[in-house]
Amino acid sequence: MALRQRGLAGEVVGCGRDLAKLKKAADLGAIDRCELDLTKAVKGAQVVLACTPVQQIPVDAQRALPLLAEEGWMTDVGSTKSTILQSLAHHEKADRFVGSHPMAGSDKSGVQHARADLLEGRTVLVTPTSQNPPELVQQVEAFWRSLGAIPRCMSPQGHDQAVALVSHLPHLLSAALAASTPRELLELVATGWASTTRLAAGNPELWRQIVQENKAPVLRALENFATIWQSWIEAVRSDDPTSLKNLLEAGKQIRDLVGSRHSSG
Amino acid sequence: MALRQRGLAGEVVGCGRDLAKLKKAADLGAIDRCELDLTKAVKGAQVVLACTPVQQIPVDAQRALPLLAEEGWMTDVGSTKSTILQSLAHHEKADRFVGSHPMAGSDKSGVQHARADLLEGRTVLVTPTSQNPPELVQQVEAFWRSLGAIPRCMSPQGHDQAVALVSHLPHLLSAALAASTPRELLELVATGWASTTRLAAGNPELWRQIVQENKAPVLRALENFATIWQSWIEAVRSDDPTSLKNLLEAGKQIRDLVGSRHSSG
Repeated sequence: MALRQRGLAGEVVGCGRDLAKLKKAADLGAIDRCELDLTKAVKGAQVVLACTPVQQIPVDAQRALPLLAEEGWMTDVGSTKSTILQSLAHHEKADRFVGSHPMAGSDKSGVQHARADLLEGRTVLVTPTSQNPPELVQQVEAFWRSLGAIPRCMSPQGHDQAVALVSHLPHLLSAALAASTPRELLELVATGWASTTRLAAGNPELWRQIVQENKAPVLRALENFATIWQSWIEAVRSDDPTSLKNLLEAGKQIRDLVGSRHSSG
Repeated sequence: MALRQRGLAGEVVGCGRDLAKLKKAADLGAIDRCELDLTKAVKGAQVVLACTPVQQIPVDAQRALPLLAEEGWMTDVGSTKSTILQSLAHHEKADRFVGSHPMAGSDKSGVQHARADLLEGRTVLVTPTSQNPPELVQQVEAFWRSLGAIPRCMSPQGHDQAVALVSHLPHLLSAALAASTPRELLELVATGWASTTRLAAGNPELWRQIVQENKAPVLRALENFATIWQSWIEAVRSDDPTSLKNLLEAGKQIRDLVGSRHSSG
């Protein structure tokens, strides 16, 4: 939608399994042409953007990479990077795939929620490997910049460790809090519960795949949080007013650094 | 502000320690008159509403109750109820204090964020004791209803157990998540982290008092969450795709029951 509105693409082809959804995307101005067949959609493309669930991305990339135009390249929007790039490392066109992860989105899925300005001012993590030519990495960064985003390069492993903490851990905490709330108390929830559990509304299958793909960093983040949580329990149990207040102050300090710059999803 | 806009009060007197803040409240149309002195503010009042931190509420109530008009009564907006009501149980006017807790608010404090429609459609928990005459409880419920809220009676103990789960636990999880996020990763946070940690921006001293006052139910909620969190860790560790997916599905189911009815704070 952003590519089309900015006049940056000759043709945007949408490829998927559900023609009705693709037609809706065309009606809403997100794509020019619908394709159910990956080969037809991708053949001769300059740029291919994989937006499938993380475990499907390498499967799609294996098929799409050989079909690109001479100077074509492929990227993705997957929430994990190491396993995707490892799966592709031995592909003859592995050099033409550069991993990306836009730090933007919402818990709403479906093209009806698409926004051409979703990436405006948002960070997009770009995770090149030693296989990617530097000029291609620059091209991918320029692509995201042309959509209003701020590209930032990091290693696939650095990416996966960082998002385990800032994205996957919050998601699982949110979901665990929602799952643990007794139904009979839902009438009593206010905005605090609602914002803390907002992420729990996300697609369980997509998130199961993300967590499985990023297992080791996620597990470390979860275990680390369990240890931190014990220190909060101790602070409450101790009756020492300063230790709990210090913890709450530390949380406020960090939260205030981010402020309302990301106030809605 | 809601009382004045609806023309429900002859005079709304604001009492506090900071004259500048009170004057701002008057300028913004929240109050008719400013008072720094509790006695002057409360003497002969029909209704007194304590909005001080939870550990201050019983102190203020001890002083305010004897000063009420003949048929006057007092309530509060404190996030805990049992300890406040226990502190007042032996007061000669204990029957005229009915505990309340509006399930509405935001992490923003200060009269500049006041909204006359804050209570519109929101639940207000009212926690009468056997000391309160039933007709007074009805009056307090009618008071909240007149401001657009939906009053709901429960016991002080039932209230404290419920809010430990739907309000205090989310607050502490949000704060612990924020406090545990490495500062160097804050540039990477997106809307998910931001909503999950929104509550962490709340006033640490207010929340320290709330947690201390509601210690036993909060401690149970925190320990219960630690156990639940271990089962999430196990699900991630197990490599069994269905157990994690089932947990995520359970979270989504509960979250979807609340939906966007409380989408902002």
